[in-house]
Amino acid sequence: MTESDLPVAELTPGRWGDPSQVVELPAAALDALKHLGIKRPGAAGAPAGVGGGAPGAETPRAAEGPGASAPAGAADRPELTGPQLAFLASVVGSEHVTSDLGSRWAHTRGYSTTDLLRFRAGDASDMPDAVVYPASHDEVAALLAGCAEHDLAVVPYSGGTSVVGGLAPTGRFITVDLRRLDQLVDLDEISRTATLQAGLRGPAAEHLLAERGYTLGHFPQSYEGASIGGYAAARSSGQSSAGYGRFDQMVVGLTLATPRGTIELGRAPMSAAGPDLRQLILGSEGAFGIITSVVVRIRPRPTERHFEGWRFESFDAGLTAVRRLAQDGPLPTVLRLSDEIETAVNLADPDVLGGGSGGVLAIIGFDGPYNQATADVLTAAGGENLGEGPGETWRTGRYRAPYLRDPLLDEGALVETLETAAFWSRIPALKTAVTEALVDALSATPPLVLCHISHVYETGASLYFTVICAQSDDPVEQWLTAKYAANHAIADAGGTITHHHGVGTDHRTAYHAEIGSLAVEALQAVKHTLDPDGVLNPGILI
Amino acid sequence: MTESDLPVAELTPGRWGDPSQVVELPAAALDALKHLGIKRPGAAGAPAGVGGGAPGAETPRAAEGPGASAPAGAADRPELTGPQLAFLASVVGSEHVTSDLGSRWAHTRGYSTTDLLRFRAGDASDMPDAVVYPASHDEVAALLAGCAEHDLAVVPYSGGTSVVGGLAPTGRFITVDLRRLDQLVDLDEISRTATLQAGLRGPAAEHLLAERGYTLGHFPQSYEGASIGGYAAARSSGQSSAGYGRFDQMVVGLTLATPRGTIELGRAPMSAAGPDLRQLILGSEGAFGIITSVVVRIRPRPTERHFEGWRFESFDAGLTAVRRLAQDGPLPTVLRLSDEIETAVNLADPDVLGGGSGGVLAIIGFDGPYNQATADVLTAAGGENLGEGPGETWRTGRYRAPYLRDPLLDEGALVETLETAAFWSRIPALKTAVTEALVDALSATPPLVLCHISHVYETGASLYFTVICAQSDDPVEQWLTAKYAANHAIADAGGTITHHHGVGTDHRTAYHAEIGSLAVEALQAVKHTLDPDGVLNPGILI
Repeated sequence: MTESDLPVAELTPGRWGDPSQVVELPAAALDALKHLGIKRPGAAGAPAGVGGGAPGAETPRAAEGPGASAPAGAADRPELTGPQLAFLASVVGSEHVTSDLGSRWAHTRGYSTTDLLRFRAGDASDMPDAVVYPASHDEVAALLAGCAEHDLAVVPYSGGTSVVGGLAPTGRFITVDLRRLDQLVDLDEISRTATLQAGLRGPAAEHLLAERGYTLGHFPQSYEGASIGGYAAARSSGQSSAGYGRFDQMVVGLTLATPRGTIELGRAPMSAAGPDLRQLILGSEGAFGIITSVVVRIRPRPTERHFEGWRFESFDAGLTAVRRLAQDGPLPTVLRLSDEIETAVNLADPDVLGGGSGGVLAIIGFDGPYNQATADVLTAAGGENLGEGPGETWRTGRYRAPYLRDPLLDEGALVETLETAAFWSRIPALKTAVTEALVDALSATPPLVLCHISHVYETGASLYFTVICAQSDDPVEQWLTAKYAANHAIADAGGTITHHHGVGTDHRTAYHAEIGSLAVEALQAVKHTLDPDGVLNPGILI
Repeated sequence: MTESDLPVAELTPGRWGDPSQVVELPAAALDALKHLGIKRPGAAGAPAGVGGGAPGAETPRAAEGPGASAPAGAADRPELTGPQLAFLASVVGSEHVTSDLGSRWAHTRGYSTTDLLRFRAGDASDMPDAVVYPASHDEVAALLAGCAEHDLAVVPYSGGTSVVGGLAPTGRFITVDLRRLDQLVDLDEISRTATLQAGLRGPAAEHLLAERGYTLGHFPQSYEGASIGGYAAARSSGQSSAGYGRFDQMVVGLTLATPRGTIELGRAPMSAAGPDLRQLILGSEGAFGIITSVVVRIRPRPTERHFEGWRFESFDAGLTAVRRLAQDGPLPTVLRLSDEIETAVNLADPDVLGGGSGGVLAIIGFDGPYNQATADVLTAAGGENLGEGPGETWRTGRYRAPYLRDPLLDEGALVETLETAAFWSRIPALKTAVTEALVDALSATPPLVLCHISHVYETGASLYFTVICAQSDDPVEQWLTAKYAANHAIADAGGTITHHHGVGTDHRTAYHAEIGSLAVEALQAVKHTLDPDGVLNPGILI
């Protein structure tokens, strides 16, 4: 099965992924939790937190669809007025405006762990007041043009898979769900470009391209649920970034609807006609407008793929090897390097590493023929080829990790991820600093901190951390404290506050420190020009 | 001789390149001019234009350095006041402020053909009122912070090699010449990055990097005179872009001085922390601030290089071949394809093409080992390998073409270049449309229109046109009319108004049409935030 065969995951609120996929923790994982002092809530000695309730307990997490029950707190928000609803219906048709609790609950927040914990606690304070489903760029533009007059803020929603904090506009607001913008508008085989609408979810976009023999090659871990518009708005980067690049490197054109009109960018792959404004819109996270379509570079579908595991003596040894590939090539399509702890946690069977002598696991993947020259570089750098077994294990499980978070939360574990990037020379100290900051901040519930590299560039790389520990009595506060410490460690060690998750609300303060107050003012000036009434995603980014 | 051995060209106003290099037109070229009806000014039947004057006539083009004579018209501008001069001296020291005519004349305009023609006509209307030479970022920042109070506009100047029109602030203005910012500040061998100050000219930067074993790999045709700051401000692209990328792709960090303070960007190669603001500053052409240094990706110096000529039956056949390399690889470092007319004009010896049977010439170059796989793609696409001869001829003459313009002007020819880029599917029609527009607009003096492709991407390519015809009585107006027609043809055929020359004043109207009024407003908002008094490069870009 390739990516284009995967179904779109219709996410349910408060629990990751396709609900038809039951994920159970392996026995080894349950054992490991005991070693971290993690106890299922309700068990003797477990905290009274919101860890999911005892087995069989009702948790207020998932609405089954529009009309399903939602927490009582949701009703506290005022209903939209008749004129507001009439305006929305006049643009998209009344059948495409919903204000039932189920729909609103299903469009609340994203999928950070604190988002999930607040779902579990029944917190509906940031539920939208209505969900609107436009079918075209013009409908999106008309909504944005009229919302100020109708005193409505707008939260764009395409995949809903953010993990960096949603927002809670203080006034009435609607969510604009882009799922009806789901067309492959154009495919130019000579230029190898495709025009994709923003509401296309990852698998749907790949499926449409596959029918024509092409692939986008963008496979973030959120692939099953995330969308083209979300990739663009948040500068996404996928697991095949070594071969296909980041999403912002794939975009050669885009169309943005703003409250003041439309901006269309991209007459050529590259230009010297002023600043590259595409890169000003990409990453603007809905603060400047709603991206309704993008023109992306596509490539022929590979006819073969190869995934392989490699063992290195240590993370440092592996780091040197992947840097060599990033700087002198030839790069594979997928290149990942786990550190010692992540390797140990992820490998149920340590014999994979050739006898349990420790070391770290790297994964390489090729879309297309196997490239022996890549393997030769790894061998020269001290790598040991473990063959296709670990590679295929990784490939087939690549979208599973986020599914594990919910049962881990059920078991009383706090589990969350964070990520950064830096130039190569800073990577070792950055990794140490972030790990120590997390361990220090969570010393009351000693954590495991796992780390891997999954995106490389000539001048640097990303670092992706996973944290697992026992939940305290107040796990939201527990995580926010740890996250605060990690953010400071990242800044002090010279990393960027996010490599591919985005800014959202979780990183806003750190983001402002990173770019400086004058750059923030410049962004605010752009925002004020395109969205003078502050209708769009208030509080996000800037 | 490699690029790092070349001397910096101390440009003289109104005539391209190192004045110690005497360039004479080959006899074949002089013959060709006759076929275009081009006559040396002063000859019987030649127009009375400003084509360089009769042999031996004094042309008011080149000041020999500070203190040299300059056209009388220059004295019409008011002198700076005592307080203005005192302010400038207080920041940089009085020895680094010059207001003699020679220095000011030497910092007037750039090197477009209309710039040169206006030099030849003695037009000094846009001469700066003083030239200031800061030595550090802090001095640049202090200048910018104080200029509004002292009623001075600022024109940044690093290499002075613009070919898209300078500006003429209506009030008093100074030129800030960055040549004293000429340091390699840092070189990080692990990350393969170098911090270069903005005033470093191309050969000086390469020389400093070569001493450490590295290269930037950025070799635009203006290489001898252009500077790091200019590359950044104008989104330059060099002749080795197929291998090294554009300059904006090399920049991973930058420091910008603005009237309101400093912006520093770039904690990592790539980030999801909001829009990529580096790409908002790159290409801003001095309208937002002065880039004082950049952090660039560097690579090890190649130990071998190979250049080769290839023949294709037609431009269309060559186009398919270079597109195949751009989309499926492996790309060489240099990839150029001339059309039939450029091939014929540039080849004094048509036997190079293997018997004078027509066809077009492509050049490929490798920094590093020869890649047979690249050659195999060209062969499969119908290419015929002409060997190293034509490749070496191109390599050794690669910076000579602009030198030929001045003697061509002397001979009464109008010669100028323009360029664009588009997606592959639009390239053939774009080429035809621009050529026809130029031929139509210059029908009174039938032109030769040469074209080549020298920058390729997966989704598209650049087109570079050279136009040669007889000068009319008013060659400035003659060219502006042709340029206007070409600009419209580019827009109508879906190209960008400039691939690597920049916007300047020549492309401002077309640029605004390309990005739209709302995007222009957004840029103006950024400008107003960073430069509220409009001190910087008034009239440029936006």
